Amino acid sequence: MSSSSAAPAAKPPMREALVAAAFRLFVERGYEQTTVDDIVALAGVGRRSFFRYFPSKEDVVFPDHERCLAEMTAFLAAGGAEHEPVRRVCDAARLVLRMYAENPAFSVQRYRLTKQVPGLRAYELSVVWRYERALAEYLRGRFVGLPDGTLRADVVAAAVVAAHNNGLRSWLRSDGEGDAGAAVDHALGHVQKVFGRSATAAAAPRVNPVPIGAPAEDPDDVVVLACRRDTPLWRVVRELERAFDRT
Amino acid sequence: MSSSSAAPAAKPPMREALVAAAFRLFVERGYEQTTVDDIVALAGVGRRSFFRYFPSKEDVVFPDHERCLAEMTAFLAAGGAEHEPVRRVCDAARLVLRMYAENPAFSVQRYRLTKQVPGLRAYELSVVWRYERALAEYLRGRFVGLPDGTLRADVVAAAVVAAHNNGLRSWLRSDGEGDAGAAVDHALGHVQKVFGRSATAAAAPRVNPVPIGAPAEDPDDVVVLACRRDTPLWRVVRELERAFDRT
Repeated sequence: MSSSSAAPAAKPPMREALVAAAFRLFVERGYEQTTVDDIVALAGVGRRSFFRYFPSKEDVVFPDHERCLAEMTAFLAAGGAEHEPVRRVCDAARLVLRMYAENPAFSVQRYRLTKQVPGLRAYELSVVWRYERALAEYLRGRFVGLPDGTLRADVVAAAVVAAHNNGLRSWLRSDGEGDAGAAVDHALGHVQKVFGRSATAAAAPRVNPVPIGAPAEDPDDVVVLACRRDTPLWRVVRELERAFDRT
Repeated sequence: MSSSSAAPAAKPPMREALVAAAFRLFVERGYEQTTVDDIVALAGVGRRSFFRYFPSKEDVVFPDHERCLAEMTAFLAAGGAEHEPVRRVCDAARLVLRMYAENPAFSVQRYRLTKQVPGLRAYELSVVWRYERALAEYLRGRFVGLPDGTLRADVVAAAVVAAHNNGLRSWLRSDGEGDAGAAVDHALGHVQKVFGRSATAAAAPRVNPVPIGAPAEDPDDVVVLACRRDTPLWRVVRELERAFDRT
């Protein structure tokens, strides 16, 4: 670790030193056996300095989530009507992935620690919940006026978080080997395919649902749908839903 | 409350008495201001009796989740290959709703309490997480061998939980007025439409995707799909995915 003071560091060095000391002790002694006093002694600072940066011992385990939540909220707020909503929340989720991928060794260490300590697991769940609410709030805004707008928003937000975490955890389980971005992109691609516009389809070709026969309630009616191959699946599904509901 | 001892009660009366005493004090004094000693004093039992039923003060707020989790796990384990998997996890989620709907006044009281006390919110998130994992584990088993089986399982489980909670919370916010079952059925119906077989389609009519033209990568290719009107949307989407991916 450099002690250069020529250029201001992006993060306060004391904060970094506290995180490094804490993780060294958590790994050596275990999380429960490490006190805040132990951490500040190793970092060579006072207790008050610790609590200036971290409200509790748990917070030092997740030093970057508050910053990331703020980034995500700002990113979503900066989105306009031109951004396809499902794509936008997938991109927002990628900000979380980037935070993990910036420091693979630290992320893997924390993953192992979190699996062992129920209190940290609970803390992580509450952080995940805040990310999910940020995505859902954004989507609720974008889905205003749609039928079941809040329901759809909540469901898509939960699906995006689950897919992100599926990709993230498979990377963490591989000890940070492999490509975190590719794992999460694949998982989020699945969600976009189910709910949103495909990433490759910038334009939105027209979908022509052509229900054949009388619009009766006969389930034997045949529905014929014709569309260009590059039509985003979400548009096909939306048109199909309309066609099917029109009985 | 009856003190009859003629027939054995379904739940131990002491357990019920502890829950009733706890909630009376939580409402009167606030959760944080109520101690386990206060609760046992009001219920007229000793501290040891409290801890025989509840590991902590938090657990008395959610007295039925362990039972409900066990019921859900048993219900899922009892499912066979004849049960459509998404439908099955939706039905499993309805067990949670039933627990809430059995006692509207208690559920609404707890909802308000949980919103006020961060520790209870964290506890609830960990319970919700356990429900979600139970659903996901079941789906992972059912989706073995499918492409992206674990990813799909995680995403569907998260979507089901989000939809259930959307319906449940709208009912709780209405102070337990209205039809909890209808709210949750509607929300779960949305998820089934996106991911699963529609509840009304017991049989599974064949879907015939007919990509017209050479199977080239030209996005101008037209895909024509014909299917019976009562085809479950999930089957149509699956066939469309295949047709679209076949380029």
